[in-house]
Formats: sequence, structure tokens, C-alpha cells
Amino acid sequence: MGTPVPSDVLLPRALAGDFAAMARLMSRAEAGVPESRPALAQLYARAGHAHIIGITGVPGSGKSTLVSTLTLKLRASGKRVGIIAVDPSSPYSGGSIMGDRIRMTELVNDPGVFIRSMATRGSQGGMARASLEAVDVLDAAGFEYVIIETVGVGQAEVEIAQAAHTVIVVSAPGLGDDIQAIKAGILEIADIHVVSKCDRSDANRTISDLKTMLMMGMGVDNQGRWNAPVVPTSALNGVGFEDLITQIGRHGAFMNDAAAGRARIRHIAEFRMLKTAEDLLHQRFLRARQGRLSAVSEQLAQRHISPYQAAEALLDGINLEGTP
Amino acid sequence: MGTPVPSDVLLPRALAGDFAAMARLMSRAEAGVPESRPALAQLYARAGHAHIIGITGVPGSGKSTLVSTLTLKLRASGKRVGIIAVDPSSPYSGGSIMGDRIRMTELVNDPGVFIRSMATRGSQGGMARASLEAVDVLDAAGFEYVIIETVGVGQAEVEIAQAAHTVIVVSAPGLGDDIQAIKAGILEIADIHVVSKCDRSDANRTISDLKTMLMMGMGVDNQGRWNAPVVPTSALNGVGFEDLITQIGRHGAFMNDAAAGRARIRHIAEFRMLKTAEDLLHQRFLRARQGRLSAVSEQLAQRHISPYQAAEALLDGINLEGTP
Repeated sequence: MGTPVPSDVLLPRALAGDFAAMARLMSRAEAGVPESRPALAQLYARAGHAHIIGITGVPGSGKSTLVSTLTLKLRASGKRVGIIAVDPSSPYSGGSIMGDRIRMTELVNDPGVFIRSMATRGSQGGMARASLEAVDVLDAAGFEYVIIETVGVGQAEVEIAQAAHTVIVVSAPGLGDDIQAIKAGILEIADIHVVSKCDRSDANRTISDLKTMLMMGMGVDNQGRWNAPVVPTSALNGVGFEDLITQIGRHGAFMNDAAAGRARIRHIAEFRMLKTAEDLLHQRFLRARQGRLSAVSEQLAQRHISPYQAAEALLDGINLEGTP
Repeated sequence: MGTPVPSDVLLPRALAGDFAAMARLMSRAEAGVPESRPALAQLYARAGHAHIIGITGVPGSGKSTLVSTLTLKLRASGKRVGIIAVDPSSPYSGGSIMGDRIRMTELVNDPGVFIRSMATRGSQGGMARASLEAVDVLDAAGFEYVIIETVGVGQAEVEIAQAAHTVIVVSAPGLGDDIQAIKAGILEIADIHVVSKCDRSDANRTISDLKTMLMMGMGVDNQGRWNAPVVPTSALNGVGFEDLITQIGRHGAFMNDAAAGRARIRHIAEFRMLKTAEDLLHQRFLRARQGRLSAVSEQLAQRHISPYQAAEALLDGINLEGTP
């Protein structure tokens, strides 16, 4: 065991592409270790070159298979690809259900691919903040593509995928009604729509339904001038991935040139600022819990004060206690 | 149209059980209208008598059907039942997908049942805060049972179900692997497990799998002394609902008597305080965005400062600006 390696020692190793150093910095980001903040700030300063792709879709949409296959195809052009998978998992157990992403066995031995599952434990702000700090690690280490994969259910989870330059929403044929209803809520964030499993006989129905929805105004033109294309894929037959990579490149070029691209970059920065601030506040809350918070929450539990009074007391308490 | 009725005029009407007044106060809670806070504080002070039941489950688990059937059975004993449905919906469109909860048509003409779909738009803190204020409206209006139904995917969504006295997690046979993996993450929050659709031939497998998982320690004994029972139900055949109501009553009695119940009440109060404080902070952020935030986020977008520096600047800005 011994003394942990300081983050500023890990930093140059991570920048040089040392996977172990990168993984350790990601773990410290995830744990919210204050000692790691200067190193993470350095990584942020050196990042900004990767094409960040958010991929989201409802459970059963074939999202993880798409990520694996897309990564293999991107690798064929010699580019390095990082994958940050934000998995649903227990808010308590802290375990990441997908574990070591066993479906991605084809990729794990490739030195040009780095895969990280983020647990979704802890505060929501923490999940977004840590995931995007992990993206910075890959970006600063020179990975040309970073894929953020999140489950397309849950407001906090969907938000993270949107902190990407290009957002891909994956649909699939044959999902149940409940799933379809959830899907409708995320279609509009797509820069590119993928219909996976297009080898299935019912895929054409899914594609035409999606196109009809888009024509009715959902999800169209969310960048002012970008019309989100629909790309059918089949991981089984390897169909559609050339087109998908072309569309990703087209959208990347659009983002580099257009005002919409600059607006997106500003939006992502604003999102990071808010999520980091929320996370710092949450950490202060947790510290305050030992002191005044327990007395205030007891008064609230007894209904002697209202949630707003309790919340104001907490916010005032933070001001009084100041920054650690 | 005309001038909106002031919230303090709506308050006595809502307390008297006027559905229109209740609905309007819920809408104001959802909108986060500051004018409504004194009325919401009054409602909070008068609430605390209802048995609040959180029902969650993955998409396709038959959760909404369970809620409808359970409500019909509870109504048979003459108790009034409120339902707060926290639906997945777009973070942008603001629409609530399930709309008027058409599956609940049997219930909508019953004056002893109040159903409200909450949109999940806006800040996560706002969603939790507004949903629990809607619970207060029903509780203060004398509803004996309030059901909070949330989709069991997404950290923010699952958290809301836990702000209940009794948490029911719904499982179902025949769901895909992706869904099953998500399900595993929410099992441990259950006070009562329901296996729905037990008329299906593969239901016994689901029940025995669940019991095996529970015996292995997942989800068992999460109250210190309460062992979560497994209740098979079939809405098709009306099977299992007597047992479910018995278990809900048993758990309610346990919560009234045991130290675990008092701990739960304190936990719920703490959750409300935090979520309300996060929401107030988020509102301050949105106001600050007009001013310094835009300059700070531009510096962040240019990578001249780090997310932590931007976040601290924001927090300091809040302190300087003070409470509105």
C-alpha cells in the first residue's frame, strides 16, 4: 500500500498517456479529493482538443453495443478513443453494475482505447463533475475521441450526455411502450439519431416512426441550422457505421465553424461551472450536517419551521462558515 | 383570465379539499413562485398525518398498473388517496409524457382520488422540492394515503421515492437484461418488494431470483430490524393486493413505533432541507447568469480558469449578492 502518489506526480504521467496514472486521477476526481484539484485544473487547461461525443439511449436500445462497434471502427483510422460510461447503479452500494464492461472485451486489450465506468453514487453534481473531469484526463492525454455513454433515463444522466460536442441518441425496434414513452423525452437533444438493430424486420417501422416525429418538429433543428440525420445501424452486420462516422465528422465540422458551435462550448462551460458549484455546496452541506444542520433538520422534522426556512438557515450557515 | 387568485386565498380552499385550489397550489409549487411560499409553509405545518408510500420500478415493471389497482383497493376501505406521479419527460419541452394518466381512467372520476403528474423539467432540486410540496398539499387536505410514483431509473428520480414512509419496489418477469441490471440498483431501497404480473408463467422464476438475491444480503434489513417481504401481485386477476395492503399497514405500524421510523422522518426532513436549499441556490444561479456568470463562463470556455475557480467565483458572487 504505502503513501499515495501525489496528484501532481501523477499529472505528467497521465499527460504522457500512462493508463494507470490516468485511472488514478479519475478515481480521485470521482472521490472529490481536494488534493487533486490543482492537477485537475491543469488537465482542464490542457484539454479542449478532443471531439467529445455523448451517446445516450433508453435501456435495451443497444447503446453499449453501438459504443463498442463505433469505437472499433474509429480505431481502424488510428485515432485513440476514450469511453466514459456513466452507469446506473445504486445510490448506496456504490457499485457500478456493469462492472468491467465485459461486453467490451474486444476493446480492453487495445492500448488505443481507454474505458472507464463511473459509478453514479454520491451527489448528482458530483456525478456530472467527476465524469467531465474524467473526459478532461482523456482529452489532455491526447485522445482524439472521447465518448460519454449515459443511460437515457433520468434527468441528471441525460444532462451529462449533453456536455458533449455531438450528441447521439440511440433508438431501437421492439421496445415496450413504457420505454418508448421515455425515449420521446430525449429525442430532441440529438444531433444525430441512430436506429440500432436495423437487421431486425421491425426496424423500418422504427425508422419511419422516428422520421415522422422529426418532421412533426420534435428534435429538428436544435442548433438553429443543423438538421439531425437518422442513421440506421446493425452491429450484427456492421452496417451503417461508415455513415455514422461521416455524420459525426460533419457535425464536428459544423460545430467548429458555426456560431452554434461556440454557443455549445459556452453552454458546456456554464454547465460545468454550475455542476462544480453544486458539488462544492453539497460538500459544505455534508460538513455542516455535523453541526447546525442536525438541529435545524430536527426542527423541520417536528414541523416547527418550513423547508424554506430550513433551507435559508442552511444557506446562511454556509456563508457564516465560509470556504474551507 | 384576470388577476391570479393569491395563494393565501387558495390555502383554506385547498385545506378544505377543493381539488381546483389544490391543483393550483401544486402548479405554483412546480413553478417555484416565491409568492406561494408562505402558503406552502402553512401546508407543511399542517401536514404529517398521511401515510406516504413511494412506489418505484424500472420501465415495464407494471408500476403504474400497480398504483392504479392498489389505489382502487385502498378506496374500498373509504380512505382518500393522492397520487403524485413523477414522470420521465424532456428537460426542455417541459411536457409530461404520460399526460393525463389515461391508464388511470377508472380513478379520475372518484372524488376520493387526486392524481397529479409532475413534469421533471427544471432543476433536479426543483423536481424533488415541488413533488414533496405537492405531497404536503394532499397530506394537509386530509388524504390518508399519498403515493409518490417515480421511474426507478435515474438518481434524482429514485431519491424522491425514498422521501416516503414506505418504499415499494416493483419487479416484473420477462424484462430484458439491461433493465434487470438497472433494477438491481434499486432493490436495496425497498421496504416491500412487489413482483407484478404474477399470472405469467415465468413469474415464479422472478420471485425465486429475487428471494435468492435478498437472502444474499441485498435489500435485507435496511431498517435495522425490518425484513422486506416479497409480495407477488397480478392486476389481471386482482391477486396479492390484500397481502400488499397488509404489508403496507405492518410497515406503517413499524415506522410509528420503532426508532427506525423516527430516523426515517429525520432523514426525509434533511432531504427536503437539502433539496430546497439546492433549488434556492439554483434560482440564484439563474439570476446571476445575467451578470457576472456570463463573464466567468466565457473565461472558463476559453480555459483561462478551471471549473473549480469558476465555481468558487460563482459561490462568492452569491454571497456578495445575498438573499433576494
